[in-house]
Amino acid sequence: MNVSECQVTVVGLGLIGGSIALGLMGKVGKVRGLDVSEDILEHARKRRMADELYLHPEDCLPHSDVVIVALYPRQVEAFLLQNREYLRPKTLVMDVSSIKERIVHAVQKILPPEIEFLGTHPMAGREGRGIERAREEMFLGSYYLLTPTEKNTPWAIKKATSLVELLGVLKVVTLTPKEHDALVSYTSQMPHVLASLLMNGFKDKSKYLVGGSFKDATRVATINEDLWVELFMQNKKYLLMEMDSFEDRWNDFKEALQKEDTAHLRRILQQAKMFKDKL
Amino acid sequence: MNVSECQVTVVGLGLIGGSIALGLMGKVGKVRGLDVSEDILEHARKRRMADELYLHPEDCLPHSDVVIVALYPRQVEAFLLQNREYLRPKTLVMDVSSIKERIVHAVQKILPPEIEFLGTHPMAGREGRGIERAREEMFLGSYYLLTPTEKNTPWAIKKATSLVELLGVLKVVTLTPKEHDALVSYTSQMPHVLASLLMNGFKDKSKYLVGGSFKDATRVATINEDLWVELFMQNKKYLLMEMDSFEDRWNDFKEALQKEDTAHLRRILQQAKMFKDKL
Repeated sequence: MNVSECQVTVVGLGLIGGSIALGLMGKVGKVRGLDVSEDILEHARKRRMADELYLHPEDCLPHSDVVIVALYPRQVEAFLLQNREYLRPKTLVMDVSSIKERIVHAVQKILPPEIEFLGTHPMAGREGRGIERAREEMFLGSYYLLTPTEKNTPWAIKKATSLVELLGVLKVVTLTPKEHDALVSYTSQMPHVLASLLMNGFKDKSKYLVGGSFKDATRVATINEDLWVELFMQNKKYLLMEMDSFEDRWNDFKEALQKEDTAHLRRILQQAKMFKDKL
Repeated sequence: MNVSECQVTVVGLGLIGGSIALGLMGKVGKVRGLDVSEDILEHARKRRMADELYLHPEDCLPHSDVVIVALYPRQVEAFLLQNREYLRPKTLVMDVSSIKERIVHAVQKILPPEIEFLGTHPMAGREGRGIERAREEMFLGSYYLLTPTEKNTPWAIKKATSLVELLGVLKVVTLTPKEHDALVSYTSQMPHVLASLLMNGFKDKSKYLVGGSFKDATRVATINEDLWVELFMQNKKYLLMEMDSFEDRWNDFKEALQKEDTAHLRRILQQAKMFKDKL
């Protein structure tokens, strides 16, 4: 079946789910939106974010070729456990969580063999949360990550790729769940840890000396602590590995500073500049 | 003498010096600009950045009530050692370096008692460097720090305050050089250290997972390594103290993560959010 004829259900019309629904509207056979909140469904109706809107899983899941679960990480498994009976054979189920290894293996275990689950993570977003901030062009020009396991088929990977390409992504990238989580601990969790720990050294008089470098370094210290404690805990193993690796670089820098080894300090800074330019 | 009649010489027409000259134009008796580069003087002439422009210190320093030395930290002492003979008694000399303790004590030692040196640090700036990026409104709404020692007089502090108020600063703040350097190691040097060390963990595949938090956390990794190695070395004592304090917070966080003490992790993140909101 061509992706343009797909019946797609988006579960959870928040910032990401709402944007996916909007981005697929008119490009696939039908977009169905499912949410537990009538207010959210009403908002979605006004903005024409989906062809059809539903409050109950049993009313829409049986008609879906693809189900995109855009819930918080800890809700994905629970939702599928509770509603797997409504999925018809050969349905492709995807999530969009920013953490993959645990979720992918847990979900693949609970779904029947005729239903395929593929972990995905769109590298897009914006400040804030909720359906009000959803927009059609959210994924334009961004990376979209797929994290297949040995249980996934080329059929599912191809279908997911064709589908997210409809959102205007720049590139679809495939990683193992393990690779994904290890990299995310560096690119996303470390900046949040560093921002928070830097911020916690604040003294009142510091405010007179705050410039752009401090403001940028601590921007994400306005953190959603419930979500982030969950993300840190779920990715504990890789985050601790990344922290160890940071400690090595930290101790190397500190030793050079103590010994006044300016040549080595300069090399450290030059390397950072080189990587940043490359990025 | 009223500050509006002051004869001011700005030494070094770079990003900061050029902006100070521009900001004082028409508000004091006369603004003189001094630089070693004829190209820079020509640029300043075209933009009318000063009333008079000079290539040689002996031609302008003897006519100055106030001399603002806007050179790199390591050049301030050398410039004043070489040219102190041209300064007339009761001249007020100021620098604008982002590092204070060493420079202030060194310069106060080499100047004759009838010439007063006051350390200052404008908390403004922008990306890039050089006269091309100088602009009149650079200091509008920013803090301006003065770091007097026991050798400074109320006369000099009052005069400097009146003068920088002409630049449209939000508030003039007085700190000891020691306090200043301790705070700057936290607000400015730590963000640069963290950005560089975070960046140095980069692996090629990381680029697919880079989002806003990583980009902001590493913005200043495009570092001027010569300047920053100098700043780190000059402020070594306080930077090492600040690194020790960061290590304590780091170890506390790491231990909570290892022990899965989610309540403590949440407290750490909440404190960071509270400080950030306060800022």
